[in-house]
This record gives sequence, C-alpha cells and structure tokens, in this order.
Amino acid sequence: MRITVLAGGIGGARFLTGLRTLGHDITVIGNNGDDVTMYGLRICPDLDTVMYTLGGGISAERGWGREDETFRVRDDIGAYVGASGTDDLPSWFGLGDLDLATHLVRAHWLAEGVPLSAVTARLCARWDPGVRLLPSTDDRVETHVTLAHGERVHFQEWWVRLHASVPATAIELFGASEARPAPGVLDAIAGADVVVLPPSNPVVSVGTILAVPGIRDAVVATSAPVVGVSPIVGGAPVRGMADACLAAIGVETSAYAVARHYGELLDGWLVDEGDKADADRLNEEGLPARAAPLLMTDVDATARIADAALSLAADVRK
Amino acid sequence: MRITVLAGGIGGARFLTGLRTLGHDITVIGNNGDDVTMYGLRICPDLDTVMYTLGGGISAERGWGREDETFRVRDDIGAYVGASGTDDLPSWFGLGDLDLATHLVRAHWLAEGVPLSAVTARLCARWDPGVRLLPSTDDRVETHVTLAHGERVHFQEWWVRLHASVPATAIELFGASEARPAPGVLDAIAGADVVVLPPSNPVVSVGTILAVPGIRDAVVATSAPVVGVSPIVGGAPVRGMADACLAAIGVETSAYAVARHYGELLDGWLVDEGDKADADRLNEEGLPARAAPLLMTDVDATARIADAALSLAADVRK
Repeated sequence: MRITVLAGGIGGARFLTGLRTLGHDITVIGNNGDDVTMYGLRICPDLDTVMYTLGGGISAERGWGREDETFRVRDDIGAYVGASGTDDLPSWFGLGDLDLATHLVRAHWLAEGVPLSAVTARLCARWDPGVRLLPSTDDRVETHVTLAHGERVHFQEWWVRLHASVPATAIELFGASEARPAPGVLDAIAGADVVVLPPSNPVVSVGTILAVPGIRDAVVATSAPVVGVSPIVGGAPVRGMADACLAAIGVETSAYAVARHYGELLDGWLVDEGDKADADRLNEEGLPARAAPLLMTDVDATARIADAALSLAADVRK
Repeated sequence: MRITVLAGGIGGARFLTGLRTLGHDITVIGNNGDDVTMYGLRICPDLDTVMYTLGGGISAERGWGREDETFRVRDDIGAYVGASGTDDLPSWFGLGDLDLATHLVRAHWLAEGVPLSAVTARLCARWDPGVRLLPSTDDRVETHVTLAHGERVHFQEWWVRLHASVPATAIELFGASEARPAPGVLDAIAGADVVVLPPSNPVVSVGTILAVPGIRDAVVATSAPVVGVSPIVGGAPVRGMADACLAAIGVETSAYAVARHYGELLDGWLVDEGDKADADRLNEEGLPARAAPLLMTDVDATARIADAALSLAADVRK
C-alpha cells in the first residue's frame, strides 16, 4: 500500500519506526514550520529528526539530534557570547557538532540553488530512512508565535529557549501565503491508499504542514481514507508541550478536541484505551473512532499502533 | 608610534607577534582575498589567523586554525560526500570544530547586516589581539586563479586542494572593482608613522590588499615611510608557496625581484643576511635596503626583525 504520513519531529518519527516494519511504500511529508535560520544556516529540525530516527542516527536519549553527539562548536560560540557584549547569538539552540555537518551540507547545496526537496533526498542518500521524505514546501516558512504580551517570536525561541512557559495567543506559519507544496507532495496525498496523521503536534507540526496552501485541500479531496492517531493521551500530550500549543489556538487538550480540531480532514481517529470515552463520543457524532494502547514504548508496540491505524483506515475506506 | 601593517595570514601574523612586543599602536589591514564562502558561511582565513595568533588561540603546530582542534564536523561531512554521489562538497577545506564557531558567529552577524569590519572588532573582543584588526574591505572579494589550461578557480581551491601544483597564469581579486576600503583603512595608512609590508605573500596577501581600489594610492601618498620585509630568503619563500604565485605574475622568486615588484610603494626594504647581494643591488639602484637575519624562529628573533624594519623606517623618513 502507498501510505502518506504528515509528520512532525519526535512523535511522528517514532510512529514511522513502527509503521515502517509493516512493509508498505511510505511517503513522509515533513514539517518546515520548525525551520530556523541561524548562523547563516537553514536548520530543518523536524526533517532531520525523521531522517536520523529512521536512519539509525538519532540520539536515543534525547530523541533529537545525533547519537554520540558533542557540543564543542556550541560551547566555543559561548565564549564569543560572553566577550562580545551582544546577546543576539542564539547559543540556547542545541547545535551539536555532528548535527552541524547536516546543516552545513544543506546550506551548501541550498546556496548552489538546489531546492530543499532535492537537498533532503541527497541527505537521505546517506541515512537510507526506508521512506520517501519530502519537505512540505521548498519555500522558506517559519512558525511564529505571538506571546501574551504581544511580542512575536520564532517558534524555536518559544519552544526551546522559553520552554513554552510564556502563554501564546497565536501561532501562525510565516511565509505560508507565498509557499507552494514541494514537488511530489500533492501527488503523494492524492495517490495514497491511506493518509495518516501520526501522533505529532496538531498545531506546530501537522497544523503547519496543512498551512502550506494546497495541502489541506489535497487531504480533504483525496479518495484515500485519512486516519489520525491522537497525540493526546489521558488529557495530556504523550511528550512535548502540545497542550501549550492547543491552548494558544483555543483547543482543549483532549483526544476528542483534537479530532474535532482536525474536523473534516478525518475519516477515522485512534485514541488511547484510556480515552475510550472520547472515542465513544466521536462515534456517536459520526466519526469512526477506536481505542488502542497508544504508548510508543518500543518498535513492536509502535508497529501495533500503526497496524491499528491501518485497520481503521481499511474499515472506513469509502 | 602608529604603525600600520598590511598583513596576510601565517607570515604576517608571526611578524606581528614580534612587532607587538615593541609597544607601539598597531593597526593591521588584513587580507580578504583568501575569503571563501562555503557551506553558506563566509570564511576569512587570514583575518582569523591574525586574530588567533595574536590572541593565543592558534594551533602552534599547523600555524592556522585553533589549538586543541578537532574535526568531527568535517569528518561527518565526509560521510555525506561518500553517500551523495556528488563531488561538489568542499570537504578538502580544513574546517575545524572550534574554528567553525568563529565562522558561524561571523555568519550570524553578517546575516544581521553588521559589516565585516564591525564583526571583526566583535570577534576580536574575545581574542584581545593587542592590535586593531581591520579587513581590507567590507565588500565581498575573492582571489581567483587562472590555471594553465584556462580554468578559473578560487584561490583556496588552488592553494589548499591542489597545493598550487598546477601552474597559474593569472591571479586577480574578483570583486575588486566594486569594493571599497573598510572604514578606517585609508585613515590608518594616511595617519601612520610607519607603514610596514611584513613578510606576507606579495601576490595573494599584500597584493590583494593593495588591489582594493584606494589602498595602493593611499600607500603611495602617505607621508609615512613604507618599509617591507622580504618574504623570500635565499631565493625561496620562507614558508608557503609564494614562488608559485610570483611565477604566475611573471616575477622572479628573489628578495630583489619582490622589492622591484612593489616598486614605488617602498621607501625601504629588509632582506635576509643571505641575500645581501640583493640589498646591495637595490641600494645601488636607489632603494634603501638592509640585510638582517629574517628567520622568525621565535618571538624574540621576530621582534628583532620588526625592530630592524622600524630602524630602517626611521632612517628613510622623509
């Protein structure tokens, strides 16, 4: 089967390690909202997390960045921060030495005019992730967050530097209006046998993929069943700070509310067995929903979640 | 005394370690011809060599790059080179991890619109080199080399990748026609008590500084004596491959010929004691020249060379 997955970083990548074992033809549309340009380099954290995770290079401990990582460059940047008297160097960003190699190679090819989608394919030639990884767009987009006191900051600054501790009042994909889906994205949605929304952040991962003009319409229009796996278990995000993102857009942190937020996109929704009441309510309201253990504790457990999502898709196939 | 030095990389930096001990007010006009943009980063090897050398951060063994350097990033880039099937990644360039911190910080500030001269001052706030270090220009220039078979390559590619083993037929500063001297450069030449051309490469270090429009004229016009220290000792460059550069522009590799190449710029010329015949010939032809031991074996020996250059300047002062 051709399966197309709209994936963010850690949660999406982990889901894919399970899905991949089921032996399908998988296309991943990655999130570019996390992309950030610093130190002259375009950094694509979510694409890299998918690539490293599926390529066996991810730090198992952190869930992002490279295994056997060191931080000599970042630490030496710190010496400049201390001496320069300026506070504009983003030394809070977790820039590992091995990870930097990826950013430098990407920057080199981008500077040569190679589009991000082709750069991503070249990077994947090394990592062999076993899926086709596409950015949502070749254009430059960035998720911007409006804080309670009105300041707008880059998503990474809110998420990494401020640990989402300051409430956000709006989250939007800057650059979206001029962005077009990367080559292959719309075809991968239209031509899929199943489209999956994995347990990625519904706002700053899946939401920002859908914010690239044309992608949401393609998901609505595809003849493939679209099934989602809830990133909210027992009223809390499994990991990350999705609750802060949902609050920013006025959505409750529950499996039910996220399904309702996705709305017309979904043909089916998988919730954790502890959230069975949410599934019952959705079924009553006409959205096929099922409960299953959703904790991705290891690859086998994750494969069972992926399999449950595909079973649901088969049952709701139009 | 106010002393202004037009310096390249290793040779110029080493000379400055000696000159600095003499207790003058030193401005260094650094060479940007070696600058190269790779991996999205503007790299300024000669400015960095001066900054690291005078700031105590240079690798004593290599003479360039950082002490206690590692090459994890470069080695990891190598894994991409192997996998990508493209050969356009300049993995031959000696990109150290600590050195990269400098390049990243510079790239960050340049991307913010800070001019290179101000970026250089900020970087020097950390290294405290004891001199005022100015780039020759804030504009982007690069030395390009025409090879015998007609191909034009960046200087770094010829120098580092090919080890100058392919003969060059022309060397020129690309971008020079649109470049202007960095703020402070012309004043530092006009207002100096002495201008020194240290034993840097006369073609791709001093020559490319002089190629920025306005700088050569300022050196000719300054009321300060202009004295040079020969980079050629006994018919060979003390280090580096200056002979290959001199051959490219049709200048013999001798202390005499380099003085003649500098021509009207010079008011005095210091040659090695082994090249006394060259000094005699120059004196006969009207250029004050003196012989002294020119091997910069340690800081004391280098200070004696600098002192000899200043004595010569005092004697030729107009």
